[in-house]
Amino acid sequence: MHESNPLGTHTVCQVAVVVDDIAAYAQRYARLLGMPVPEVRQTGPAEQTRILYRGQPTEGRAKLAFFQAGPQLAIELIEPVGGPSIWREHLDEHGPGVHHIAFRVPDMDRAVANLSDEDMPVAQSGHFAGGRYAYIDSVRQLEVMLELLAHDDR
Amino acid sequence: MHESNPLGTHTVCQVAVVVDDIAAYAQRYARLLGMPVPEVRQTGPAEQTRILYRGQPTEGRAKLAFFQAGPQLAIELIEPVGGPSIWREHLDEHGPGVHHIAFRVPDMDRAVANLSDEDMPVAQSGHFAGGRYAYIDSVRQLEVMLELLAHDDR
Repeated sequence: MHESNPLGTHTVCQVAVVVDDIAAYAQRYARLLGMPVPEVRQTGPAEQTRILYRGQPTEGRAKLAFFQAGPQLAIELIEPVGGPSIWREHLDEHGPGVHHIAFRVPDMDRAVANLSDEDMPVAQSGHFAGGRYAYIDSVRQLEVMLELLAHDDR
Repeated sequence: MHESNPLGTHTVCQVAVVVDDIAAYAQRYARLLGMPVPEVRQTGPAEQTRILYRGQPTEGRAKLAFFQAGPQLAIELIEPVGGPSIWREHLDEHGPGVHHIAFRVPDMDRAVANLSDEDMPVAQSGHFAGGRYAYIDSVRQLEVMLELLAHDDR
């Protein structure tokens, strides 16, 4: 890395698990954590999210559910829906399991450039209401995928 | 679960990655996070840790390194050393990757009993300076292993 802190942060804000039946897993995690079963949301259509999976547009989407597991971190459940995506790829190649850890970065373009310089390119990117995300192909170096999150108000 | 909060907490305090060369991965994570390379410690011998792996004593140990990734959570790197262990099992069966998420529980015996009632038994347990731990066979239900941590002063 060319900077003392390539991400601009070292605070993990999510640990995410890909599953094949989000309703069933949301119930199990709710029981484990003693929390209400959260609403399951679906990512928007491609024309809204401008999703790029390995550089190409895709119709892949996902169902998402979040548990706030302490003030710093959410456990995220992800079920792939529809076409190709980084989530579908994980489920097809590895089955259900931990998909990524996420960092909220102060400067997305800078963080992406810093990681790319270290041979950790973007695997998927897109927008959501209020921000954008990038998944980083970091498994070879770190044994876990990274997600970078940037919010519009930062 | 028979209680509103079987763990007695919902705060994740660790996400841990099993690796096969902790010195190399510790350097990579230090670069990623802009943090110093942490000291690598080794778990104590079996007569100190009273380690039980799937109910049996073992000479299995591990090298550990920790990065404080925000106030709530540490990223832990684990390299198995010596005999059989839950860490060695993961490396042999799945290769390097995310091994567990951890919760610091207020009452270890109660948490273990609550999870056991839900068919999530203890996979490995042991002591460390100032506390004890239990790994829970939760992968079938949750797609990730849990670690429970209890400190003597709680």
